[in-house]
Amino acid sequence: MSRFFKRLSSTISIKPIPSKAHHHRVLPDSAFPAGYLLTGVHAGVKKNADVLDLAVILSTSQNTTSAAACFTRNAFKAAPVLVSDQILSENGGRARGLVVNSGCANAVTGRQGLDDAWAMSIETDALLPPSTSRFKHHTLVMSTGVIGQRLPIDSILKGIRSQTSTESSSTLGSDYAAWERAAKAFMTTDTFPKLRARAFTIRGTEYRIAGMDKGAGMIHPNMGPASTALHATLLGCILTDAAVSPRSLQTALTYAMDRSFNCISVDGEMSTNDTVLVLANGAAAPNAVEIDESTDKEAYDVFKAELTAFAIDLAQLVVRDGEGATKFVTVNVKGAPTYEDAHRIASRISTSALVKTALYGEDANWGRVLSAAGSVPLPNVDPKNVSVSFVPSDGTKSLGVLVNGEPENVDEERAKEILSLEDFGICIELSAGSEEATYWTCDFSYEYVRINGDYRS
Amino acid sequence: MSRFFKRLSSTISIKPIPSKAHHHRVLPDSAFPAGYLLTGVHAGVKKNADVLDLAVILSTSQNTTSAAACFTRNAFKAAPVLVSDQILSENGGRARGLVVNSGCANAVTGRQGLDDAWAMSIETDALLPPSTSRFKHHTLVMSTGVIGQRLPIDSILKGIRSQTSTESSSTLGSDYAAWERAAKAFMTTDTFPKLRARAFTIRGTEYRIAGMDKGAGMIHPNMGPASTALHATLLGCILTDAAVSPRSLQTALTYAMDRSFNCISVDGEMSTNDTVLVLANGAAAPNAVEIDESTDKEAYDVFKAELTAFAIDLAQLVVRDGEGATKFVTVNVKGAPTYEDAHRIASRISTSALVKTALYGEDANWGRVLSAAGSVPLPNVDPKNVSVSFVPSDGTKSLGVLVNGEPENVDEERAKEILSLEDFGICIELSAGSEEATYWTCDFSYEYVRINGDYRS
Repeated sequence: MSRFFKRLSSTISIKPIPSKAHHHRVLPDSAFPAGYLLTGVHAGVKKNADVLDLAVILSTSQNTTSAAACFTRNAFKAAPVLVSDQILSENGGRARGLVVNSGCANAVTGRQGLDDAWAMSIETDALLPPSTSRFKHHTLVMSTGVIGQRLPIDSILKGIRSQTSTESSSTLGSDYAAWERAAKAFMTTDTFPKLRARAFTIRGTEYRIAGMDKGAGMIHPNMGPASTALHATLLGCILTDAAVSPRSLQTALTYAMDRSFNCISVDGEMSTNDTVLVLANGAAAPNAVEIDESTDKEAYDVFKAELTAFAIDLAQLVVRDGEGATKFVTVNVKGAPTYEDAHRIASRISTSALVKTALYGEDANWGRVLSAAGSVPLPNVDPKNVSVSFVPSDGTKSLGVLVNGEPENVDEERAKEILSLEDFGICIELSAGSEEATYWTCDFSYEYVRINGDYRS
Repeated sequence: MSRFFKRLSSTISIKPIPSKAHHHRVLPDSAFPAGYLLTGVHAGVKKNADVLDLAVILSTSQNTTSAAACFTRNAFKAAPVLVSDQILSENGGRARGLVVNSGCANAVTGRQGLDDAWAMSIETDALLPPSTSRFKHHTLVMSTGVIGQRLPIDSILKGIRSQTSTESSSTLGSDYAAWERAAKAFMTTDTFPKLRARAFTIRGTEYRIAGMDKGAGMIHPNMGPASTALHATLLGCILTDAAVSPRSLQTALTYAMDRSFNCISVDGEMSTNDTVLVLANGAAAPNAVEIDESTDKEAYDVFKAELTAFAIDLAQLVVRDGEGATKFVTVNVKGAPTYEDAHRIASRISTSALVKTALYGEDANWGRVLSAAGSVPLPNVDPKNVSVSFVPSDGTKSLGVLVNGEPENVDEERAKEILSLEDFGICIELSAGSEEATYWTCDFSYEYVRINGDYRS
């Protein structure tokens, strides 16, 4: 019997996880939208006093600020999700503040959890400049971390109060350092703060959009607009100084989400806390009317395209920093009857444990790719017309491994060359229609098991 | 920045995978059904000459032999699946032989793959005793192993021919050793041969049922009857000496599958090759009429219940020997509106990478259990009525961790005690109906990544 157990005594040789430090970007102060104050502090949710765990973000614009969000569709929505959803709904898509803690998700915490999330919102409201609006609440809430544990609410409230403008402890600011502090406070198992910014022009006025997100694990978002929302803990916050009507902001965000955060997977897990929100405060042009799809489709389309491109940037950062990830893999499914079919197959390939362990092993195991694709019911696909190829990111020629249902005599050297790159693609042509979808995923390593086999301790 | 990268230099301490040798069972020769000859040989699909890679199973009964099967629902069905499906269909549910190879799945091998599978069937037909039946083909085919590689068909055909009764190399037999050889030839990454037998009585006649299966990885079956079949590579073969009509054999197998193999998951992967088949040769009572649901419901119900219980035994063995598994976990979902809802949630929990890594880490992370459950759309569930508990296998008291939506102050010592057992359960009460479903799953370890990160080499 001894040979049956030979694997038991094997030793595991561990590939080092490559540093992702080069994806952290230092930006000029001028890259950021006007009219926001931000900071990140250590409030005491996490033990280590060097680690930031509370972010405060305030819109200080004289204009009203529009807010839109996409929340997890999980049946067990965390308290901060329920609270933020309610505020957005009561305010008709207006909010001026955001408070975020990492280290504890405040999820499945019962009645007390809701009280805690409300307390965070109310405490942050006190930091905002006075407003003549009729709204009772102004601040949205996000939490990320362990599920089922209560927040150390007193420490958090104290952390928020320390940012009062009259306190010397306040570190709220609008420069790069302030934005970076906020981005750092979002982090859980992330290895670098995810902060990006870009500028765009509509009718001669220059606007800025900037934002941060966090991810790493429990990442397979399928978020929808408020109260209708399915998957990930992914938190994202996008801030712009353009003026956009609440309804059009939500429409643009929902569109962007379907082409960005809803097309990434780290581990196929939908969290109780996933939230991406966008604030638009109009500070770049205080007298401009709000962009709205029904009154100025052209301006709206530019904004929607910019928001989408920016959301894709932020979403990809999460995959790059996926827990234990050593690869960034673009999965492209072509020739599907509908976009939904293509998206479903790309999602299945991107979440397959066997595909992802093969990617980690730099093994061009296209059989697993096909097997995963085939596990999605799709009656119109004829296996004889299906092709698979690996696409290098360095501009060199892609490698067909299955052509019209027949396996190629694969050049394993070349396959290894492609798969040893940090970035590459897998392309599958179904020849059953003209729709396509793109997904971004990472590999599945020992490090993922290590991080998640011992997360709470 | 250095703290963001601290995990990169961490060392991984690896828990040894417990030996599963005690699940291998030696059985008396008398435990097996009459009228079958079996063997397992080394044909050369696998490199190591000590490893069996070809099983031949023949029904030698004078009676006609009924056959039924459930195949993978994968869109890219392997050649042996297509060939077996066609034979069963042409013969109206009759077949007398089975030939199985491990080491190569003969999947996505194009036209040549089909020719190879047919050649295996035809070559094995020649080993069968002459028959007066009008059928052109008698032998079903199964393959398991790497996808997208061609079979070494000449070696396989030579291996089959070596079992001709006039050859001194023939090792076909009906004793325990012969059954064990066949079971060993099914194995891929399995660590022990999976062979079980049981007896049952219908109206005073004693029948026997025995069988073998293999699994380990790519296990999340969702198999259906021929030509309608969705998920796993799982191969199973069940042989009985009862006489059952083809139609009732298929009905009974489909029923049994839904309560056994379709309720297990190792890694959530549906393979191109999954097949479970059953042969019923009537050898125990040559003059008995075939059991049929329409003519003798009582006898049929006994047979169906026995087949189901046996299929559950075989299915659980696959989970016990899941690739890298150190735990055997029973997931019980209660209080669902429908069985399908309960099954869907149990399946989601059983495939969650975060739940499975927590199980490996012996971490009572019930938040992940709930988060996974919540990712399945289920509008009727009120989080305030949901409870979760961990159930030890040693008869001691179970541990409630979430009671009616409120987290308990969990006794972590006791939780650790339960989770350090090899067998335990997770029970989730939805309080949204009266249906329940049970799933069997395993944990997700470094060893899984090792096995699958380097499978082909």
